[in-house]
Amino acid sequence: MVNPLYLPELREMIAENNADQLREFCEALHPARTADFMEGLDPQEAWLVLSHTDEQNRVAIFNYFDPTLQVRMIETLERKEVAGLISELAPDDRVDLLNDVDEAVVEELLPLLPTEERRDILHLSSYPEGTAGAVMTTDVAKLAESLTVREAIEQLQQQSAELETIYYLYVVDEQDHLRGLVSARQILSAIRRPETRLNEIMETGLVTAEVDDDQEEVAQKVARYDLLAIPVVDLERKMLGIITYDDVIDVMVEEATEDAYRSAAVEPLEDSYLATSVMTLVWKRGVWLIVLFVAALATAYVLAHYETYLERPGWQWLIWFIPLVISSGGNAGNQSATLVIKALTNEEIETHDWLRVVRREVLTSLVLGIFLGLCGLLAGLAMTPEARTIGGMWVLPTTIISVVMVGSIVGSVLPLAFEKIGLDPALMSNPFVAGIIDIVGIVIFLNVAWVLL
Amino acid sequence: MVNPLYLPELREMIAENNADQLREFCEALHPARTADFMEGLDPQEAWLVLSHTDEQNRVAIFNYFDPTLQVRMIETLERKEVAGLISELAPDDRVDLLNDVDEAVVEELLPLLPTEERRDILHLSSYPEGTAGAVMTTDVAKLAESLTVREAIEQLQQQSAELETIYYLYVVDEQDHLRGLVSARQILSAIRRPETRLNEIMETGLVTAEVDDDQEEVAQKVARYDLLAIPVVDLERKMLGIITYDDVIDVMVEEATEDAYRSAAVEPLEDSYLATSVMTLVWKRGVWLIVLFVAALATAYVLAHYETYLERPGWQWLIWFIPLVISSGGNAGNQSATLVIKALTNEEIETHDWLRVVRREVLTSLVLGIFLGLCGLLAGLAMTPEARTIGGMWVLPTTIISVVMVGSIVGSVLPLAFEKIGLDPALMSNPFVAGIIDIVGIVIFLNVAWVLL
Repeated sequence: MVNPLYLPELREMIAENNADQLREFCEALHPARTADFMEGLDPQEAWLVLSHTDEQNRVAIFNYFDPTLQVRMIETLERKEVAGLISELAPDDRVDLLNDVDEAVVEELLPLLPTEERRDILHLSSYPEGTAGAVMTTDVAKLAESLTVREAIEQLQQQSAELETIYYLYVVDEQDHLRGLVSARQILSAIRRPETRLNEIMETGLVTAEVDDDQEEVAQKVARYDLLAIPVVDLERKMLGIITYDDVIDVMVEEATEDAYRSAAVEPLEDSYLATSVMTLVWKRGVWLIVLFVAALATAYVLAHYETYLERPGWQWLIWFIPLVISSGGNAGNQSATLVIKALTNEEIETHDWLRVVRREVLTSLVLGIFLGLCGLLAGLAMTPEARTIGGMWVLPTTIISVVMVGSIVGSVLPLAFEKIGLDPALMSNPFVAGIIDIVGIVIFLNVAWVLL
Repeated sequence: MVNPLYLPELREMIAENNADQLREFCEALHPARTADFMEGLDPQEAWLVLSHTDEQNRVAIFNYFDPTLQVRMIETLERKEVAGLISELAPDDRVDLLNDVDEAVVEELLPLLPTEERRDILHLSSYPEGTAGAVMTTDVAKLAESLTVREAIEQLQQQSAELETIYYLYVVDEQDHLRGLVSARQILSAIRRPETRLNEIMETGLVTAEVDDDQEEVAQKVARYDLLAIPVVDLERKMLGIITYDDVIDVMVEEATEDAYRSAAVEPLEDSYLATSVMTLVWKRGVWLIVLFVAALATAYVLAHYETYLERPGWQWLIWFIPLVISSGGNAGNQSATLVIKALTNEEIETHDWLRVVRREVLTSLVLGIFLGLCGLLAGLAMTPEARTIGGMWVLPTTIISVVMVGSIVGSVLPLAFEKIGLDPALMSNPFVAGIIDIVGIVIFLNVAWVLL
């Protein structure tokens, strides 16, 4: 959401170095909106604008910049200023950002950061991408289980400015093992009994994530249990950090985008579409296009193999319908694959439901096939007298019914099989299913013709 | 996530009507987990289990049941018991649920509900599906702007049990106009100055949603601004309700699923895959299959039209490569369409970026086309001596480069055009793009051959 309309006014303020107006600009709106208005500025201009507000607001606005601008700012601005900014970012955002920054710059920046932040960066970046550890933040309100409500409130008043969320307060023992949770709501409700101990009001039996868990599974857990945040623990239940609902939303958007790319045979991009170089796009698309091309070559071999069939008198009209036959099968297969993949990711079905799924697909595709087959019958009759023989008229409908059914069954079984053996079922969406159906469709078509003609 | 393993134990407890164990079962775990364990029970059994815990926990567990079980319970259990349960549900969930229940049952239930709940149901269900009004809840903590921090805490202690969220507290004037927001964090921080008035500490300039806004746009706003909840207002800024982050997550999952269905030419399902009847599936898939079938018929007409070409001596081998040519174009087009659609939904590009997008697609597809064209050249040379003539050898590579480029351009421009005219760009994903490329691809193929041979 770039707002290029206001850029000239903003540039004028910068040129005049109008401190009052620039401060007003930084502080009047929600930081996300301020950031929107600033897109289009170069790193130096953006930094100049941000220098007119306090540190907290500066970081808040910076957080909403486009990642490309963030990276460019970090790489081009004076290291010392950047170090100050970085040390104020949330630990999880900081690590994500530094992952995208030129390594040489990171090496120069690390010594300029306070020891604690530096250690935290090295620690968080040691978790592999896509795990709970890599998404979590270490900014978390931890309270000792022996505290009273009054003591807890006092601690929170000191801590709250630095913390990302205080809505859930985690209760730990002396060795940082997670014991329970009190919500801000519970604290407010217990305010009239200030000597109550936290371990009397805390909830136990929490839903937790382990540090190695896949980020998608963690996101689903948070969504399923309607959590604001999920604590991340190690094998000994030591509290390492939390993942908050806003990071969960980000993970879900990321995963939905990845699935969409996979289903179109594009290797997931790391950056936004416009920020990805053409050569990277060529590579991310090319690998799969080659694989699909080789699969499609098989159709050429099959057609070459049946060459003598197609040259027979009275058979040429079949050629016209090759694209129609394979697209009918491919489309039906693609529908089934998408339905099954979505049902799997939304946890509506599991692999052991395969028989129910196949039964439904057989029924559905039989009805669809009969209907499309009838359309095919009419199309054939209308287009050529050669399709008006006793045998000829049944070639198209028989083929279409078979191809639609085979397409649906293959389309539903392959994602289930991929899930079963631990691969991403989204890989088996169109166009892979379509590639398989192309070959099978042609073989069915020509064999049906051979029997009937 | 059904856990059928524990059903026998649970049924045993029910048969013995073991009150202690059943209460223990209902209260020991997070309500979502308890609900998981109960899936597979019939409505009567589920109700019997729930009758062993208090009302609040009963509603919490019920909330996590599969929608199918919820509907069956409401339709089959005694109306009076159901009415008690329904009046305890969150207003937004209640309306969603009653939308799925048989209308005759709803008519019987409404008179049994307390007046306020009944009015609320009629009010909320008047908002069209997919708008902010239909997703919002009316359970919201509203505080008068003249209250002090101390008075606010007292009010909250009375209200908090019934409210879905108290993390954001909305400050309104006497006519319910939204004035500002205080967070639980701000209240906690101001606790030492209990006479501070809310309008001194409240934040103004809030991000709001209007009641008619599209739910997807609202969800994107919440994600963009990292909000816990967004207030829903009418045109006069009167506060009508809020949408909380957990409903936002649900909306995002729903929209991602819809987009995936659209991109596979399936009309979005209203229920889960297994809960949708075969006839509904036939309908949701059939409409689009027919449309695509008619589009594919055009390929048959085109091929029939060029029949005399294909019958020439030395031309037959071209037939073998028809599926390969059209699938290359379709796959490239599908990739471009998906990249552009995702960039649009993730707000990385807007329609006015079309020229940049096309330029990138031309470049990318040129490189991809040259590479695939070379593969085509080799395949042709390997498979037939007729592709080894001066003209013949260039037919496949020239066609493939053109088809890949046309596919990518069409695939990227169509979603942008759909977005521009206000249609869902996801409609222009594969297989519609593939259908168009099929026709264009064949025309290009045969014309290239005509020029070169």
